[in-house]
Amino acid sequence: MVHALDLLGTFAFALSGALLGVRKRMDVFGVVVLALAAGLGGGIVRDVLLGVTPPVAVAHWAYVTVAAAAGLCGFLAPAVVTRAQRQVLLADAAGLGLFAVAGAAKAHAHGAPALGATVIGTIAAVGGGVARDVLAGDSPQILHSEIYATPAALSAAIVAFGSRSPAVEIAAAVLATAIRLAAMQRGWSAPRAKPPLP
Amino acid sequence: MVHALDLLGTFAFALSGALLGVRKRMDVFGVVVLALAAGLGGGIVRDVLLGVTPPVAVAHWAYVTVAAAAGLCGFLAPAVVTRAQRQVLLADAAGLGLFAVAGAAKAHAHGAPALGATVIGTIAAVGGGVARDVLAGDSPQILHSEIYATPAALSAAIVAFGSRSPAVEIAAAVLATAIRLAAMQRGWSAPRAKPPLP
Amino acid sequence: MVHALDLLGTFAFALSGALLGVRKRMDVFGVVVLALAAGLGGGIVRDVLLGVTPPVAVAHWAYVTVAAAAGLCGFLAPAVVTRAQRQVLLADAAGLGLFAVAGAAKAHAHGAPALGATVIGTIAAVGGGVARDVLAGDSPQILHSEIYATPAALSAAIVAFGSRSPAVEIAAAVLATAIRLAAMQRGWSAPRAKPPLP
Repeated sequence: MVHALDLLGTFAFALSGALLGVRKRMDVFGVVVLALAAGLGGGIVRDVLLGVTPPVAVAHWAYVTVAAAAGLCGFLAPAVVTRAQRQVLLADAAGLGLFAVAGAAKAHAHGAPALGATVIGTIAAVGGGVARDVLAGDSPQILHSEIYATPAALSAAIVAFGSRSPAVEIAAAVLATAIRLAAMQRGWSAPRAKPPLP
Repeated sequence: MVHALDLLGTFAFALSGALLGVRKRMDVFGVVVLALAAGLGGGIVRDVLLGVTPPVAVAHWAYVTVAAAAGLCGFLAPAVVTRAQRQVLLADAAGLGLFAVAGAAKAHAHGAPALGATVIGTIAAVGGGVARDVLAGDSPQILHSEIYATPAALSAAIVAFGSRSPAVEIAAAVLATAIRLAAMQRGWSAPRAKPPLP
Repeated sequence: MVHALDLLGTFAFALSGALLGVRKRMDVFGVVVLALAAGLGGGIVRDVLLGVTPPVAVAHWAYVTVAAAAGLCGFLAPAVVTRAQRQVLLADAAGLGLFAVAGAAKAHAHGAPALGATVIGTIAAVGGGVARDVLAGDSPQILHSEIYATPAALSAAIVAFGSRSPAVEIAAAVLATAIRLAAMQRGWSAPRAKPPLP
């Protein structure tokens, strides 16, 4: 069950990479590479930080296969994927909450203290998107105006500092997903910095 | 012998970093840093993913020395290196096949399954070029229009899924190099994505 | 004492990230993320290369707290921080020498040979700045015209190749800081590459 959700999150993240590659008019290999980076990047960095080598995303065939399949879907049928944009964003938000909670729980299980597990859970949730944007030559989306890393950090903190019961974990994952969806729907944004005059 | 080929590949990759630094008018330190990133990046990421720490490229003096020497060559004699562009590209293609095959074999020896070993071999072959381009502020070359990551992935897969006899490994490395050279000479390119109208 | 210096360096590096985020008009979360990357990036990469997982910067609450606090300071009072620019640059130069020396000593203690310890110490000192610039979409400052990585490499080499007595370590850290400050004050710069005509 968790495994299936994990792969769904990987697929959604990978689709976001594939669509960015299509928008940038990359060839099929570039699109698949970007899908792999977006789908697997967060989990790989999480596992490297925890000393889990080779990382699960590399060691289990399902992750690479799912992410590459998402890349091919995005390349072959960008119009279909774009029309299903709402479903993709929903899956992306679900993946965000799931990866944050699962990452924090895994970090705790590997001996990271609570604040460290929060950081690692957040990195697991947003790392793929950062890899995607840096490779595509964009400044990462999470640095600009959208509420994305914050709900992930909140859910990771709930799991890392709270009790690790399944009920708390599910509630935390749902919370991050709900905040992310509400922020998208209502256009929430955080205050911007006002740079001083030079 | 393998060691000498490994260092030749490192030198060729590092030269590509140095030449990019020269084209971007960096100072001597920037050129050397870019040469080190291009020459050592792939091997370092491969070893980190496999839990080999410190990575061989850091632990053995020869790698740093060869990559830094390539950086200085590129800085001091860019015209000579540019005139030898064909030889540099030939060495780069040889390094591509060699790093892919050696990376996949090393990953297999460290317990990665076949698909994981393919991914790690590919990362070993293209990782330095990605590090070079991201540091220089370019979107990585492998994402755009050139057949580069694919022959590396093909050769890594042959070694990872096939038998690990020396004959197979040599043939796989030569195959990647030959495809890369043919793609350059004939201007092969993969189909581009057609983004849907917004 | 060393611990306090280490946290001071982290704070200074993180402030540089926060100020870049403010200049780029990021929201409060983007500014904090950039501060975390600049403050913690070098130490995290150092520890990953040495197989120290989870990295100290993640495993100890003080590092994340100090770096996030620097991010909030930069966001809330950019004018104050900008007026204190000289103190920030002084702390940054002190962090540079300290991280280079401490990184090289830690690498040696984990079995890296001298040249490898030099590379790892240099990465520890400049890695946060590279992460900061790449995330913000800039080409890393260390690649362009400023004497920054070189004094770090020099100090790391003194510790890695010389004796690891406290006196040598302190002298090496002070040397890197002094060269960095002198280079800033006098506008020293290294020779640029002259690209050959195409």
